[in-house]
Amino acid sequence: MWNKNTLTEKIGIRYPIIQAGMAGGITTPELVAAVSNAGGLGTLGAGYLNAEQTQESIRKIKQLTDKPFAVNLFTPETPEVHSEEVNQANKWLSPFREALHISQVPEINEIQTTVFDQQIQIMIDEQIPVCSFTFGIPSRSILQQLKEESVLLMGTATTVAEAKANEESGMDMVVMQGSEAGGHRGTFSGSFEDAMIGTMALIPQTADQVTIPLIAAGGISDGRGVLASLVLGAQGAQLGTAFLTTSESGANKQHKQAVLSSREDQSAITSAFSGKPARGIQNDFMIKMKQYEKQLPAYPIQNSLTKPIRGEAGKQKRPEWMSLWCGQNPRLCKSEPAGERIAAVVSQIERLQK
Amino acid sequence: MWNKNTLTEKIGIRYPIIQAGMAGGITTPELVAAVSNAGGLGTLGAGYLNAEQTQESIRKIKQLTDKPFAVNLFTPETPEVHSEEVNQANKWLSPFREALHISQVPEINEIQTTVFDQQIQIMIDEQIPVCSFTFGIPSRSILQQLKEESVLLMGTATTVAEAKANEESGMDMVVMQGSEAGGHRGTFSGSFEDAMIGTMALIPQTADQVTIPLIAAGGISDGRGVLASLVLGAQGAQLGTAFLTTSESGANKQHKQAVLSSREDQSAITSAFSGKPARGIQNDFMIKMKQYEKQLPAYPIQNSLTKPIRGEAGKQKRPEWMSLWCGQNPRLCKSEPAGERIAAVVSQIERLQK
Repeated sequence: MWNKNTLTEKIGIRYPIIQAGMAGGITTPELVAAVSNAGGLGTLGAGYLNAEQTQESIRKIKQLTDKPFAVNLFTPETPEVHSEEVNQANKWLSPFREALHISQVPEINEIQTTVFDQQIQIMIDEQIPVCSFTFGIPSRSILQQLKEESVLLMGTATTVAEAKANEESGMDMVVMQGSEAGGHRGTFSGSFEDAMIGTMALIPQTADQVTIPLIAAGGISDGRGVLASLVLGAQGAQLGTAFLTTSESGANKQHKQAVLSSREDQSAITSAFSGKPARGIQNDFMIKMKQYEKQLPAYPIQNSLTKPIRGEAGKQKRPEWMSLWCGQNPRLCKSEPAGERIAAVVSQIERLQK
Repeated sequence: MWNKNTLTEKIGIRYPIIQAGMAGGITTPELVAAVSNAGGLGTLGAGYLNAEQTQESIRKIKQLTDKPFAVNLFTPETPEVHSEEVNQANKWLSPFREALHISQVPEINEIQTTVFDQQIQIMIDEQIPVCSFTFGIPSRSILQQLKEESVLLMGTATTVAEAKANEESGMDMVVMQGSEAGGHRGTFSGSFEDAMIGTMALIPQTADQVTIPLIAAGGISDGRGVLASLVLGAQGAQLGTAFLTTSESGANKQHKQAVLSSREDQSAITSAFSGKPARGIQNDFMIKMKQYEKQLPAYPIQNSLTKPIRGEAGKQKRPEWMSLWCGQNPRLCKSEPAGERIAAVVSQIERLQK
């Protein structure tokens, strides 16, 4: 049986299909619950939520499903704030702010990890079945604390070395993010360019080197991709873009429409939105900011600086200035309920296995 | 049966495993014949051979096997020679020439297509079963001529649009080259950066849009990769780097050793060796030339300029100045006879199917 393995047993899910924890309002409680109710693992992308929003979302999810689900957190980064760098970035961003009639410039304070610490406590209080992490591995003491409360730990890696580091840290499983993946790169050691490894190459090479279950991510949208991931040596597959366009997803209409009308060769990697490399559909913001990319403040500083731009662009329906995160698989995406997507993936796998 | 499909039937091979037509002396007649004798499709990489060498290699292959094999040709490009650009490139290349004690600077004449035209005639005269093309689609009249002589035509594409163009041109099948692939990018329309699509995303999206058989390429080295390619919608898989390190391969010892000791995150794309983007293990030449990449002469002019450097670096065992072409899958490569690699791929697929 293709759907019975260590991963599905450990988590207690019917199918090894994981919905990526896309942050920024995409993973509504309705989406997370729909995926889990259909037999996959829904994931709340809590990276940009505060403690209150995190708890509220979790409680809503629990009202909608009694199946296991995951919460994705961003392992915090605390770069120093250099005011000159921030001022320079603000200068480059001002044409976009002007065009959108944004008068206030975000104030950047010292970066704190308070929200993350509160979120960890919520994971424990709410007895979250699976907690996944992006942007690095949290401290040993935090992982230990979660382990003692029987929270399953899922890391993210983009190279074999990062997968090994996840295994050594005590993660129960690790998402291997190939270069095809939409949204932020999970690379946390070395240069992100070197770590742009295609899923086809990344999975078998990692499977030979680590023993914890691997979850393939990047370019996977349907039964072909999920079954191929299992063949390559993963025990599950994570789908992001394919769930972004579903009915329950909170991605705004312009974002969904951009993905649904996009080709495989229209996305690119940009650091301009957040200070961290991420894959999105190429638009005016990415093209105009490209020349400054190497001089922008680090994540999450740049992310805070562009937040009003992204927000207003969404409200004013200006996709050219929104972060249109998207993997290299937009042609395979559909507008449909998440449960139907999962049912289609499952029946495609069963057809392929005949 | 995983190995029975339109592709294997058309070509008359036992397994849908194609050895990439790597140019530059790697695909010795012994390698091509070993692959074909083991049930795959061996390919002579004739891109850099003259007419005489092409014919001689074909005749040797025929002495070593009575199975079908392919010849890969480079669809010619004839950029104008700008002497200022060439002089500038020579200035940048002079430190490497000096270090290798190369006194002569290659003379660049107007680019001709004579060799390609002669090679096409050889395909016909020698009744080559399969002729594959990289770097674009030859003229309609050439393809027509080959079709009339029952030569099967195999194109190369890196996007869905390029695959459609291949299908419309009359190609019988098309290699879909994912971003993981080693050596030169086959992109022939649009920017190569946009066409860096991972194999996992490229295959299913193309399979939905064209009807000729697809051959997956990029990051595939073993039974897992070949079976995953079939699951994704391809009818075959092309392996390059995995055959580069075999005993019969003509790659020099330093090149083989570099691949065998390399990690998945050590290759990068460079145009510095040939004027055309290609993936190789990052070395001193690539790093030092990176800053000039956008100002170098086009392929094949830059290729001619660096030829003595690559040649001498090989002779003097200086891998830091050689073109160490390699895909993102070096950890899966072994030093073994090509026939053993194919047998291992086949038995791994059969185990995976149980």
